[in-house]
Amino acid sequence: MDKVRIIEVKQNVLANNDRKAEELREELKAGKTFLLNLMSSPGAGKTTLLGKVVDRLKGELRIGVMEADIDGDVDALAMAKHGVKSIQLHTGGMCHLDASMTKQGLSELGTDDVDLAILENVGNLVCPAEFDTGAGKNLMILSVPEGHDKPLKYPLIFTVCDALVINKIDVLPYFDFDMEKVKEYALMRNPKLKIFPLCAKTGEGVDALCDWLKEQVAAWNA
Amino acid sequence: MDKVRIIEVKQNVLANNDRKAEELREELKAGKTFLLNLMSSPGAGKTTLLGKVVDRLKGELRIGVMEADIDGDVDALAMAKHGVKSIQLHTGGMCHLDASMTKQGLSELGTDDVDLAILENVGNLVCPAEFDTGAGKNLMILSVPEGHDKPLKYPLIFTVCDALVINKIDVLPYFDFDMEKVKEYALMRNPKLKIFPLCAKTGEGVDALCDWLKEQVAAWNA
Repeated sequence: MDKVRIIEVKQNVLANNDRKAEELREELKAGKTFLLNLMSSPGAGKTTLLGKVVDRLKGELRIGVMEADIDGDVDALAMAKHGVKSIQLHTGGMCHLDASMTKQGLSELGTDDVDLAILENVGNLVCPAEFDTGAGKNLMILSVPEGHDKPLKYPLIFTVCDALVINKIDVLPYFDFDMEKVKEYALMRNPKLKIFPLCAKTGEGVDALCDWLKEQVAAWNA
Repeated sequence: MDKVRIIEVKQNVLANNDRKAEELREELKAGKTFLLNLMSSPGAGKTTLLGKVVDRLKGELRIGVMEADIDGDVDALAMAKHGVKSIQLHTGGMCHLDASMTKQGLSELGTDDVDLAILENVGNLVCPAEFDTGAGKNLMILSVPEGHDKPLKYPLIFTVCDALVINKIDVLPYFDFDMEKVKEYALMRNPKLKIFPLCAKTGEGVDALCDWLKEQVAAWNA
């Protein structure tokens, strides 16, 4: 009885959110701001990768970053050092961002002078996947130490993402991680997924991801 | 308006769950079964650590394992190889286990012949921390590749846990992970936290955790 009630509430919340996300996407399209939603487990390397991407693209695109966390401001401080505008969003204990929270964040950030807005979602492979933020594209990071079986265990996030970064390839020799298997499992969830093995720390492979991102921004404004 | 409504629903759900968790804990106490709730990010090493713990303790304690996942059965299959009874719980998309789901799992597992029941929760540092499962103690794993700043970003899980395993110490040389800082941050969240640095893969440091677990089971039945 209890379980049924909870699920119904959740479905209403999700339906409301989907509608708001669609509205936000239309507003962003009209305003020529492309929003990327970046998701991963805690510690997969979202902030480090963002730093490298921002350093490469800030000469060509006007970038704004929203760092979402349950608590703390270490990520926004880190991004500010890379010379792009950034704000910290506190979710107040919530495990994900929804479209309303994202819209509020974008309004605080200011999007008039932003071509590429990046939302660093809360570190979590489950709940963020359920809530459409209104982003143009979803990008996720899986890092080598997490293991190649993750697409089997967390199917939804691999399904809703447009691109998958496989990060920390520099430590491949020290982990039992099968690159072919992870690709096979991920493509089983989502045959259209673009996959970018890279190392955010050293920068190896980051250029290919940046090229993909530039294509997305161009297509958004076409 | 919407946000307020969601929060109220969540508070009701949490209050109901707390009551059910307390009831389950009393039942387990009466039945002399100690339940450990194991939480971590995806890929921190829960299943590997459990295998090592079970191998060391199965001669002294009757152990039963519940592997919770959104999908898949790889973990329950892995545990069965270690010669203890194990079942797989599918959460059907839910990002955590609550006390009702845990009770249902325990009833499927059967606890009459179990001294130590272990629940491997869904890989997630956020939602599982909010839902009391009815366990006697909560144990979490943070792995070296995730970084030492996690107690700053995911405060609640460090607060509700009784013990913290710092796993994958074998790869310390390849990551910028500060062991002293992580201890300082974690103890700031929870001064009573027991901390066990170890490597589940090689077994280094696992004995100290097993000693702690045996003490908890003994205290539960005292």
